[in-house]
Order: sequence, then C-alpha cells, then structure tokens
Amino acid sequence: MISGLPHGDLSVLAADLFDELRRSSFDGVGVTRESFGPLESAAQDLIAHVAAQEGLEVEHDGVRNLVVTLPGAASGAQFVATGSHLDSVPQGGNYDGAAGVISGLLALVSLRRRGITPPRAIKLFALRGEESAWFGKSWIGAHALFGLLTASDLARPRYDNGRALQAYLEDIGADVPAIAQGRVFLDPGAVAAFIEVHIEQGPVLEARQLPVGVVTGIYGNLRHMAVVCRGTAAHSGATPRFLRHDAVAASADLIMRMDRHWEEWLGQGRQVLITHGIIATNTGEHAVSRIPGEARMSVEIRADDQATLEGFYDVLREETAAVSEARGVTFTFDEAIVNRPAPMDSKLAAHLESLCAEEGIPHMRLASGAGHDAAVFSRVGIPTAMLFIRNAHGSHNPDEHMELDDFMLATRVLTQALVAGDRRAAAQ
Amino acid sequence: MISGLPHGDLSVLAADLFDELRRSSFDGVGVTRESFGPLESAAQDLIAHVAAQEGLEVEHDGVRNLVVTLPGAASGAQFVATGSHLDSVPQGGNYDGAAGVISGLLALVSLRRRGITPPRAIKLFALRGEESAWFGKSWIGAHALFGLLTASDLARPRYDNGRALQAYLEDIGADVPAIAQGRVFLDPGAVAAFIEVHIEQGPVLEARQLPVGVVTGIYGNLRHMAVVCRGTAAHSGATPRFLRHDAVAASADLIMRMDRHWEEWLGQGRQVLITHGIIATNTGEHAVSRIPGEARMSVEIRADDQATLEGFYDVLREETAAVSEARGVTFTFDEAIVNRPAPMDSKLAAHLESLCAEEGIPHMRLASGAGHDAAVFSRVGIPTAMLFIRNAHGSHNPDEHMELDDFMLATRVLTQALVAGDRRAAAQ
Repeated sequence: MISGLPHGDLSVLAADLFDELRRSSFDGVGVTRESFGPLESAAQDLIAHVAAQEGLEVEHDGVRNLVVTLPGAASGAQFVATGSHLDSVPQGGNYDGAAGVISGLLALVSLRRRGITPPRAIKLFALRGEESAWFGKSWIGAHALFGLLTASDLARPRYDNGRALQAYLEDIGADVPAIAQGRVFLDPGAVAAFIEVHIEQGPVLEARQLPVGVVTGIYGNLRHMAVVCRGTAAHSGATPRFLRHDAVAASADLIMRMDRHWEEWLGQGRQVLITHGIIATNTGEHAVSRIPGEARMSVEIRADDQATLEGFYDVLREETAAVSEARGVTFTFDEAIVNRPAPMDSKLAAHLESLCAEEGIPHMRLASGAGHDAAVFSRVGIPTAMLFIRNAHGSHNPDEHMELDDFMLATRVLTQALVAGDRRAAAQ
Repeated sequence: MISGLPHGDLSVLAADLFDELRRSSFDGVGVTRESFGPLESAAQDLIAHVAAQEGLEVEHDGVRNLVVTLPGAASGAQFVATGSHLDSVPQGGNYDGAAGVISGLLALVSLRRRGITPPRAIKLFALRGEESAWFGKSWIGAHALFGLLTASDLARPRYDNGRALQAYLEDIGADVPAIAQGRVFLDPGAVAAFIEVHIEQGPVLEARQLPVGVVTGIYGNLRHMAVVCRGTAAHSGATPRFLRHDAVAASADLIMRMDRHWEEWLGQGRQVLITHGIIATNTGEHAVSRIPGEARMSVEIRADDQATLEGFYDVLREETAAVSEARGVTFTFDEAIVNRPAPMDSKLAAHLESLCAEEGIPHMRLASGAGHDAAVFSRVGIPTAMLFIRNAHGSHNPDEHMELDDFMLATRVLTQALVAGDRRAAAQ
C-alpha cells in the first residue's frame, strides 16, 4: 500500500487510490483483476483500509462483498446504497467498476469528514465478480447477494482454466452452502435506493463533450459462451468443395448472416447488438492443410427490451439451422445466460438530473448498452439509478481513460443524491 | 516391436507393420507421429529393422531420411527410387505416408526373397517431415535432400510449442550446417525415376469404386500460417455498430467473400481450393463481452496450375484490402509458403497404366489435390510418377481407411514398375 493515503484533498485521495489500484494489478498491457481472485481481494482491502482509517464501518457480507457504512440519523433498517465492482476483464482498464466504488467511498469520506449525518444510513458495496469474462456470468456478487445464483452458476468453469466458480467462492471464504440454497443476504425492502456511478463504456459522452450522463435504462443480454460447430475434418487438398463440411466456413457464414440481419434491424430502428468475442478451432486437431472439423465461438446479443432480445435470438437460431442444412454441419449451444433489460427509477433519474442542473454540470440522458450491477438491484425491485462518467477509448481495453475532473463532478452529484436518499423518502 | 515380424506372407507382413505403427502412435483419437519427433523415428526404426532382417542395405542420409537399397545388376550410379513419409498430422490416420513406405519395403522384400536382381539398384526413401501441420512447411525431408531448405525454413517454429525446426533436426542428428548451406545430398541425375505410392486423400476412387489411380499431376499450393486481423477491442454493450472495428466480423467477412469467389471460379471450370484450417481470437484478451481486437487465421490456396494459384491469391489480397477499408481493420500476412504445381512424367504414368491393364486392375487417371514428396522429386527434374490407393473417409483424420487388398494391388504394380525403371532406360 502506498504511503500518504488517505490524503486530505479528496481529488488527491481519488488519484492515489486509482494509481495504487493500477500499480497493483498492471499485467504488462492493461490491468487484470480476476473475479474472485487475489487482486480483486487486494483492491477490496485497499478500499476497506481507507474506509476504516476514515472512521467508517467496514464489514463483508456472506458473499464477501465489501460493505462500508456511514450511519444515519434514523433508527430504521432502511438505508441508501451505492457501489460498483473492483474486478476487471483480462487486460482491461483501471476505471471500469473501480470508479464507482471509489466515488462511493469519497462520498462517505466527504460526509464523515464534514460531520454530516445523513437522514438514513448510507452503505457502499464493492460487489465481487461483476465481469462475465471469467465465468460467463455477469454480476455474480450482486446476484448472490439477493439469492439469485443457481447451482449451475456455481459449477461454471472459469474460461481459461476450467476451475469452478464454487471453488473460487470457497477460496475467499464466502458462505457457499447458503449461496447454493439461495439465501437472501440483503432484503431488497431494506434498500431505499441504489445509485451506481460507472464510467460510460461507450463513446457517447465523449462525442457530445459532456462529463456526466444520467442512465435511463440498462440493455438486457443473452449469451452463449460456446456455440460449437462440428463438420468433418478432411484433407484440404483432396476434398472438393461439394464434399466439404467445413466448420470455419460454416461459422463465418453464420456470423455474416447475422451481421446482415443486424444492419437491417438497426435500419428499422430496433436497438440490438451482436458480438462474437471468442472464436477458435480445436488446437488438438487443427492444421493449415486440414479442413477444420470443429470451431467454437461465443455469441452475445444485447437489446433495450426483452422482445427485441428474444426476437433477434430467434433469428440466430433460424440462421443456425439454415447454415447446418446448407453446409452439412451441426451447431450445439451451451446453456444460454440471460439478463433481462433493467429499467431505471424515473424519479431517481430525474432527481440526478436536477442535481446536475443545480450544480451547473453539463449532462444528458442515455441508455446503457453495457450491463451493470445496478441491473440486479433494479430486478429485485429496488429504486435504482446510475450516473455515467465520460470515458475515452471505450472500456474492456487498456486504453480506457477517465478525467479526474469528470470523476469529481459525478462524485459531487452522487454525494448529494445519497444524502437525499430516494425521492419518495425525501418528500415525506 | 511385435513378435512374428517379418511374416512370410507379404500381406500378413504388411498388416503387421500397419498394426504396429498404429499401436505405437495411437494418441487416444487417431495417430500422431510428429515430424522429426520420436514416433516418426520409431516408425523409421521399424522399417529399418525389417529391411535389415530381409538382407536389404539400410542407411540414413544427412537429413536422417531412411534409405533402404536393393542392389541392381548395373554398376552405374543411377538407380530407381520409391518412397513416401512416416509422419502424420496431429490425430491423423495411419496410412497417409506410411502406405507408400511399406509398399516400397514390400516391393524390395518381394524381389529379394525371390532372388530377383533388378537392372539397376532400387532405393526406398522414408522421407522425414512431410506434413506441413507441424512447421507450416511441406516435404521438409525431401526439400533438404535436394538442398532446397532455406535459413528461414530452419527457423520455423513448430505450431504448438514455438520450438524451431533446426532444433528438431539437431535432435535427430541431421547435418544441420550442411542443410543450412544448401548441400545437395542426392544428385537428381542419379535418380532414373521416382515412383511414390500414396493413399488418395480424397473421395474420387472410392466414389468410382476403383482400387488404384495413376496421378497425372500434383496441385501447387500457397499458404500463410498466420493472417492476423487487428481491429479495436472494446466493450460489446457500449460500442455501437458504426464505431466497431471487430476482428472476428472482419475475418468472417473475408472468409465469406473468398467463399463466393471460389464458387464462381469453380463454375468457370478453374480448379482451385481454399481452406482456413485454423482460426483463433487472442486468448490473452478475448472475452464474451468484448469486441475482439485480434483474430488470426491460416489460409491455403491450391490449384492445378501456377496462373490459377497466383490469380486466386490476387483476389484474396484485393478482398483483404476491401475488408480493411470497409471495417477499419488491418490484416498482416506472414511469409507465404509456395509450392508450385508439379507435373508427373507422362511416359512413367502411361507405363503404370499399362501395368495396371496387364494385371487386370481397375484404375483411372486423376490429379492430386494434395501435395506429396513426389512434387519435390518432379521439381528437381527427376521423372516422377504416383500411384494412388483407394481410401475411405478422406485423410488427415482418424477415420481414414484403406483396404489391404487395394494396397497389395498397388504394391504389385509398384514392384514391376521399379524393376522396369524409367521407360527410357528400359527402352535402351
């Protein structure tokens, strides 16, 4: 841990925290903080260390999410919550997730240092395992918090080494039997509001030259980690075109058919995204002079409403059947992972907008194509809102970039919103 | 080594040899005899053992190709040659290559047992490293034999572990300095004819129900082990279509553009083949929720004449530029490996046909889409011919299947052809 933490100036403290996170998890290219891995734990420890030094209450829940509390004036069980995650994709950026946790920490530190007691307690959650890159499942810590992790989720292998999620949960001391039984570690009724700060993971705020955005809703997504195409391996010189069952050609055919549908749907104003982030022939048998007998790829569809999500998935399955027929191959799909689109609370969002306006912070409303922990809080019925911070070069890559000034503006809005709590509570 | 070898009945000896080869190199799925690896060496040793027991001369040349000799009546330096290879692709079949070596061995054993001294010596070559699967270069042992291996060939990394070809050559005791200097280990002028027996690696003889084929020529090929597409990694939910530079979508686009050209060229009667046997995103950074920033694939084009080969390659490079432009990605190609189409000697081929006819063996003429060691012998000016044996289920896969009866018919033709030598010599 670097010396000098925590600094009296909040923006210096923020910069120090981001620097320390980057230093401890730089992988030579970007940062890698594996979900449920030691560097995610180290990042939690860094946040907990500063929180404790500042006199905030520090604990871990049964999922080993870090929870930092600033007590409120009211004795009731309801509290206002903020938070995000500390893990990253492989070779990712430093701000995706961490910005929201550090913003929440700074909000609590700021209130505590000024001796402000909010009407209700405010809790910061550093949620574990948000990134789907590792186990193919998003927002694992948030899901487990509300008893939403299934047995098949717990058995999910990590993409690179095949080790099960359950083993990683055991490593960090999570209450795996309770998670497996679907225990609800946090009663949604106790949470008056959840407000997550996150970098925008796209180019919209950057293009519009706005430091902050207020999120109107979160896209849902549907994923298969492995769509396996099986054809027939054969000699590339001796097998004529009409006798081939080429798994790479068939996969490329499917990708391009979907690419054309995608273009068409966008033209019709239907908000959908499709991505094949992973593709590979079988390293145990592929060769430059061999017609590939097997190729596997991932597929992810995102959309702003459930009907669009399901409709585009239907097109994928139809085209899969058409390619199978045309090229004499088969496609097998592993279990689909579905996250429904998550609406944001319109009153909370309007309040965030009015706070931006009061502070003179340029802002806009926008939808989130990326998924976030906030989606889980929305799903269990908690009034939820999000603030985006402008970010250059996208995210999930080492070039991700956030200006500290933008971050401090978002933190100022967050701090006020957390004190106000949910608007219904504030109006009472 | 199995007991009972060598059997008095040649077909039993052949079956025993194939069984022993399969047993010693079965990998759980198919057979794997790595080029320049220990199982290729063990296969050589098996052939050498039987040859020595039968009273044939056994030696290894400077490339550690195995050379088995039956002396001839003439004292001149010219000899007649046969041979093939003993290595396999990963998880390949047992007969690809080995059938030609064992057929040649049986021819020599048969002549020796019957006390027949041919007019000229007959030499069997078990050539090392024929399969391009391992180092991206075909017919390495044959190339080195004629001083045709380059320094960059010697530096080629093995596809799976990156270890250089040179290191493998040193392992087996090849004369690497001489190979590097381009020493000609075998004077092409000393070889009156080269006749290779090989399984057909396609379905033509099987479809036509013919046990044997006489090859009219060998397709040339042009290969890149790695065509690397680089785009921009980005968050799959937050990056709209028009801002994407997706390496997988671009690679699929290129594959499908070439697929359409291929269909068109075939329709115009141009004999060409294209295969992408290997494709993979970067395992160090890819993820289901990340737009892939990098994809690499192999490409191989085969054609029956050089103009077609080069013409189709030009189309590939044009489409690569078009996809780069359309999708904002780059493609980089590693060094191309080119093997020119190789004509067969028409007189030798006609002689093989006449021998088939005399023996009452149903046969046909056909071109070889697959490359073979014989192409190198043809290239250096040696009168060259090939006999194909019918083979089910293609090759370069574990299901490859050859009937022993077909093999024995081909061996009978080969034996007579080797005794006759080249037809010009025989006509003298």
